[in-house]
Amino acid sequence: MEYHPSTYHSHSVVRRSSKLQILVTDAERLYKRLTQLKNKDNSPQRHRRDGFLGLFGHKVDLLDHYEKTLGDIADNVRIEQSFMAGKEVPAAFVSFKSRFGAAIALHLQEGINPTHWITERAPEPHDVYWPFFSVTFIRRWVSKMVAYVACNAITILFLIPVALVQGLTHLDQLESMFPALRSILRLAVVSQVITGYLPILILQVFLSFVPALMIMLSSLQGYISWSQIQKSACTKVLWFTIWNIFFANVLSGSALYRLNYLLEPKEFPRVLAEAVPAQASFFMAYVVAFGWTNIASELFQLIPLFYNYVNRFFGGDCGDDFEAPTIPYHKEVPRILFFGLLGVTYFILAPLILPFLLIYFCLGYIIYRNQLLYVYVPKFETRGEFWPTVHNYTIFSLILMHIIVIGIFGMKKLPIASGLILPLSIATLLFNEYCQKRFFPIFQGYPVECLIKKDREDQNNPNMSEFYDKLNKAYNDPALMPIKYSGRPRSRRTPLLSSESQNSARESQSQDMLV
Amino acid sequence: MEYHPSTYHSHSVVRRSSKLQILVTDAERLYKRLTQLKNKDNSPQRHRRDGFLGLFGHKVDLLDHYEKTLGDIADNVRIEQSFMAGKEVPAAFVSFKSRFGAAIALHLQEGINPTHWITERAPEPHDVYWPFFSVTFIRRWVSKMVAYVACNAITILFLIPVALVQGLTHLDQLESMFPALRSILRLAVVSQVITGYLPILILQVFLSFVPALMIMLSSLQGYISWSQIQKSACTKVLWFTIWNIFFANVLSGSALYRLNYLLEPKEFPRVLAEAVPAQASFFMAYVVAFGWTNIASELFQLIPLFYNYVNRFFGGDCGDDFEAPTIPYHKEVPRILFFGLLGVTYFILAPLILPFLLIYFCLGYIIYRNQLLYVYVPKFETRGEFWPTVHNYTIFSLILMHIIVIGIFGMKKLPIASGLILPLSIATLLFNEYCQKRFFPIFQGYPVECLIKKDREDQNNPNMSEFYDKLNKAYNDPALMPIKYSGRPRSRRTPLLSSESQNSARESQSQDMLV
Repeated sequence: MEYHPSTYHSHSVVRRSSKLQILVTDAERLYKRLTQLKNKDNSPQRHRRDGFLGLFGHKVDLLDHYEKTLGDIADNVRIEQSFMAGKEVPAAFVSFKSRFGAAIALHLQEGINPTHWITERAPEPHDVYWPFFSVTFIRRWVSKMVAYVACNAITILFLIPVALVQGLTHLDQLESMFPALRSILRLAVVSQVITGYLPILILQVFLSFVPALMIMLSSLQGYISWSQIQKSACTKVLWFTIWNIFFANVLSGSALYRLNYLLEPKEFPRVLAEAVPAQASFFMAYVVAFGWTNIASELFQLIPLFYNYVNRFFGGDCGDDFEAPTIPYHKEVPRILFFGLLGVTYFILAPLILPFLLIYFCLGYIIYRNQLLYVYVPKFETRGEFWPTVHNYTIFSLILMHIIVIGIFGMKKLPIASGLILPLSIATLLFNEYCQKRFFPIFQGYPVECLIKKDREDQNNPNMSEFYDKLNKAYNDPALMPIKYSGRPRSRRTPLLSSESQNSARESQSQDMLV
Repeated sequence: MEYHPSTYHSHSVVRRSSKLQILVTDAERLYKRLTQLKNKDNSPQRHRRDGFLGLFGHKVDLLDHYEKTLGDIADNVRIEQSFMAGKEVPAAFVSFKSRFGAAIALHLQEGINPTHWITERAPEPHDVYWPFFSVTFIRRWVSKMVAYVACNAITILFLIPVALVQGLTHLDQLESMFPALRSILRLAVVSQVITGYLPILILQVFLSFVPALMIMLSSLQGYISWSQIQKSACTKVLWFTIWNIFFANVLSGSALYRLNYLLEPKEFPRVLAEAVPAQASFFMAYVVAFGWTNIASELFQLIPLFYNYVNRFFGGDCGDDFEAPTIPYHKEVPRILFFGLLGVTYFILAPLILPFLLIYFCLGYIIYRNQLLYVYVPKFETRGEFWPTVHNYTIFSLILMHIIVIGIFGMKKLPIASGLILPLSIATLLFNEYCQKRFFPIFQGYPVECLIKKDREDQNNPNMSEFYDKLNKAYNDPALMPIKYSGRPRSRRTPLLSSESQNSARESQSQDMLV
């Protein structure tokens, strides 16, 4: 109100609510369980109700126990909430009367010390990640550094399982290590499975844990929204994939000691030119075994299906509250881009990879289109913010291809040919530089031209006051909402709200809460 | 007025005036010459008047000739100026009613295409560099790239004279190259001069052309103010100095082939550890011969004195219009910083360099303080913008020192000691990172806090309307000012204006001009 008096509209202060959040999560989980139990109890058309409850035999006890616990938690939540007034964190969501006003506050440094007063674009309300509001600039910075170091350490240490897997493709080494297995390994089927398919399978098992790990690291990094966390995790997974699948497989092929050469830039093209063509067959198998399988499993959603089936069978969780899945960008984007990298780097060395990739991309286009339109629910608006990642990665692929080609021409004693590649690399880098200037500012903030145009349209919009009312309540911490489920006997009479209507009810009552 | 209606104040469009500028410069030069001649003519107390004019013998002819030429040029200027209305360039100086309003327009991207509409902070009026206003984004970008490539090429090619100079310190090589000189080179005095002093002298002669060259390159780079050009040239000279004085001398000491090792990062500390201590005596001599001499010549201003004397003797330019010199930051800042680098890198290898440096810095403090206060006229307000350069350079010096120390400990077979240096480097880089976050935003723009405070002070200031009037006229192209010297006989009657009063007169008449 001091610096932006004409455009300031409202604000909601963030409160330290980590303790409360745990309680509310507990309460929600219990409430869900209770609702399920009650549903089974009250609706006689359920099939497995009697049998299932008969199996446990103490239905009433369980209900009572749950209700009692829920009541205790709800009381705790109310007590905690009443103490919230003092737990204000030096952070707030500030809303402005116009987009232009918000852009001014966002782009100009507010205080004299740039670390005291940081402005960031507010994420969509359901996209907010709350833990990092209570944290000072220095702690955020330190967590970022720690996450960065941890990410690099994981990326590099992951080489160990990759190297072991790659050892499998060289059966002769394995034979000399385990002489007892020699007779088994000599079988054609076994050796084909071990050298052709097993390495990829083991790699895939290891790799399936990586996106979750990177999301965890990114969430430690001080971002205030899930979308930012996912974007950052996407970049992490991307470099992880390049390093651990491309470089590790290429260079550790027969000799891990070659990594040493990576520290000598002059040797780099030669080493790559020697190692990359040798791994062409591995990557072709990789495209078929990993790429095609993934596309297929994406369509059939085998893992969620299996999980749901198991859950239904053992837990009795009938899937009434089945949530539509959201697309895990941090898994899918790096995967698709990596196949692009394979295509770009191998198309001159082993053109046979191209038809496989073409099938992958065609299938991918059809299937992902279907998934995005009819299966996944968008959790947040990406606003095309993955574009810079894709662009940088494509430029990187091209430059890597040039380096490999320079190395190959060098090996074939064609210095003029490798010299002629240089202008291509320079042109690529200049194109990249131009794109950075021309297109990347779009991701920093909207131009005044658009803001003013939209603001003027809004001025004539009769619904604006309604929108402002909504804005006041949009950014309240979900943990501070008045708790709706008391768990006491009278709550049995209250209608069971679906999660949607519950959310809207929350919004309407939140203003009383914050007083 | 469309996007910033409440804060827009006025603007002045830039016009394509390069042709006019040449004419005006010609006219000004002629006018100055004419004034000098007339002064000599009209003031009988001048000493050398008769003798000087007697020497040439056609005083009246010269005056008439000058006046005629000046009159022609003035007519041409007026004709050119009348055609100016159509030569508008898509660039303008826009002034705003408040600092806050100007900051908004500066920091927010205006148009949808970020390359069409670029906002930059306007330099001080006399600091404007006009040529790059007529240039599109792409041409500016291309010139920047070209300047960058040229600068790198010059920096690297300069190694050749440096290598030749360094050859002088190894007399044995010289002897074998020129056997005829052997008897002369064997003389103690000659060999001492050649090995000790001559290399530094030759280096200095070559180096004295570099700042001017870098200023030229920077002025091609698309900056719109002299201060930016000087800042950019300062950075260029800095890296030039590091590369061509420090690295070239250290590594080419006895073997230029060592440069090859620079491409292998692993070998880097070892090569430096071997080469740096070997050049300690050269750099000690450098501090004395180059540093101390520079400080002294700075005090006595020998070159301007000599230049002035020669000018006065031959040209008869009596120095009535002697301009106070401005400090050439792009020469002085890199020089002082380089001695800092020498101190940081050599203080553990050759501590004997420290007293010499101490004397240099003490003398420098006293002398530069005197020069800045009483000799130099500040041409523009630097606003501390050289601080980031100094900071980055200091961090670079520290890291370089760490690398050398790691190499030396490695050579002495003390792996633990060199390992213990690593945390120091990491801490230095973290400190640098923190400073970047904490202090560098200050150079991007002023915070809202300060802007609003100053704006509120201004609102109560009764002189603001006067300031706004001045603002309207401040950014007019000097080439478009009505020409004051007609050179026709009647102009003899007009009082001869000093350059100050002439400037203010220009300002008062400029408004008629632009109609």
